[in-house]
Amino acid sequence: MESEFVAWLRRHAPAHPQLTLGIGDDAALLSLLSSQCVVTSDMLMDGVDFVLSDCDPRRVGRKALAVNLSDLAAMASKPVAAIVSIAVPTTISLEVTKAIYDGLLELAAEYGVALAGGDTNSWRHPLVINITAIGEPPQRGVLTRSGARAGDAILVTGEFGGSILGRHFDFRPRVDEALCLHQRYDLHAGIDVSDGLSLDLSRLARESSCGAIIDASCVPISGDAFRLAERNPDRGSPLDHALSDGEDFELILAVSAETAERIVADRPIGVPLTRIGEFVAEPGLWLRSESGDCQTLTPRGYEH
Amino acid sequence: MESEFVAWLRRHAPAHPQLTLGIGDDAALLSLLSSQCVVTSDMLMDGVDFVLSDCDPRRVGRKALAVNLSDLAAMASKPVAAIVSIAVPTTISLEVTKAIYDGLLELAAEYGVALAGGDTNSWRHPLVINITAIGEPPQRGVLTRSGARAGDAILVTGEFGGSILGRHFDFRPRVDEALCLHQRYDLHAGIDVSDGLSLDLSRLARESSCGAIIDASCVPISGDAFRLAERNPDRGSPLDHALSDGEDFELILAVSAETAERIVADRPIGVPLTRIGEFVAEPGLWLRSESGDCQTLTPRGYEH
Repeated sequence: MESEFVAWLRRHAPAHPQLTLGIGDDAALLSLLSSQCVVTSDMLMDGVDFVLSDCDPRRVGRKALAVNLSDLAAMASKPVAAIVSIAVPTTISLEVTKAIYDGLLELAAEYGVALAGGDTNSWRHPLVINITAIGEPPQRGVLTRSGARAGDAILVTGEFGGSILGRHFDFRPRVDEALCLHQRYDLHAGIDVSDGLSLDLSRLARESSCGAIIDASCVPISGDAFRLAERNPDRGSPLDHALSDGEDFELILAVSAETAERIVADRPIGVPLTRIGEFVAEPGLWLRSESGDCQTLTPRGYEH
Repeated sequence: MESEFVAWLRRHAPAHPQLTLGIGDDAALLSLLSSQCVVTSDMLMDGVDFVLSDCDPRRVGRKALAVNLSDLAAMASKPVAAIVSIAVPTTISLEVTKAIYDGLLELAAEYGVALAGGDTNSWRHPLVINITAIGEPPQRGVLTRSGARAGDAILVTGEFGGSILGRHFDFRPRVDEALCLHQRYDLHAGIDVSDGLSLDLSRLARESSCGAIIDASCVPISGDAFRLAERNPDRGSPLDHALSDGEDFELILAVSAETAERIVADRPIGVPLTRIGEFVAEPGLWLRSESGDCQTLTPRGYEH
């Protein structure tokens, strides 16, 4: 399928000012603003990250790019280009493959991302799509996982839990939000929630050599988490879903207590920002009740 | 498997002067010499590009990186970093996964390539490994597929055919050779032979809006091509294998006739360089016999 499909893709992938040489050669040539580049890669598999037979293939392509943009957002990096590799089952039609790319290209256009090429293959097994996204670091340098300090507030964008009901496809990567916040405020650290709020928070805390306390009553729980908990009371409370479902693709940020207050008061972005707890010197993760009792919280979420 | 494996990988991936931020964050940060970067990606699948059960897993990891370095070589680009995504079947052990990375890291060390991160996953289907390689353009700019002119000589490195007997794993990507030739001589165009000499030559010719004539008696045929033809005379002659087997990962270069003579006389690299024909104005591909008769040659090779 390669030659026909690549010809279609060359016609469909728009020009981009930073894509000096695009699809059709052995590699692409990108022109960046500086000599540093930010690189991330995510592989999505049918039956794991989506079920192709149950969904619009455009959503698969969109998600494959969106998860990468979310990683760049976590670094406060502006996305520039995406390189897409795909292994398509021989049983699906060229139209489905094109629909996957249509979904991807639509999101790429929204975020000003160039499609810089990749690799197309077919095989007798389920669909695999890998995207590598390349971004530019912001002027004040990338945001990392390792800068949180004891006493910092834990700020999060958006709501958590129940993304399986649809948000894991349709989420908006918090690129603009991260760029805006990183430019206006002194952010100490950041991570995006791909695997679970508690799990990803524990990762950020570990990289920063500190611990974290989550205030149970402060976690913004999505309506989807309530719906899931209602359907299956055995599978945990809405809060449990919010803490461990994953694929929320919201940001966790570490900022000083004063900055957190300012940010929450300023409302600088269109997405809600909530202070859900604080970083502490002792490594570990705790859930604090309204009465102030702290219980050890086992980080839970999706392990690949 | 992710956290244990990622911890192992962080310990095993060596530091690199251009890897400002490596494995362990949402993305990697690379420092390049200029503001341009060269990017390519290849996805390898069990049962298509290798048979995991029949080979040393180290060779799989090595090949996954080597095919990408070959793409960078075709652009005369110096490799800097690799981002590795993998979907590992739940049936294989962590030791096998580590062996795949060992093979990859060994080649990375030889070529000075940083392992900048990636994505590790497990699933219930065959192994998929995707690598995105990032390189730096050479000072005189990248070599592309589109610069061949009618009258140019077709130069190739190495020998062709029968790579399935082992060379498709153990080939040396022609990175140093490409950098050396591009710096010393005026190369007009280049491509690496991944899918087949005749198919990849036809791609280069098409991108250059010209045609090509191959002199049948000049094609350097590998011993493996002779061995394959002897085993299965029905599957074509040694020359047929050389023209269409693919995975030789040698370079096809377009240079002026004078430059070709100089290069062949100079022997500037340790690998044989052979003039196998010439580019012509008329689009198409022909095979010329020693008597000078030209026959149309259908580009053949591996279609993904």
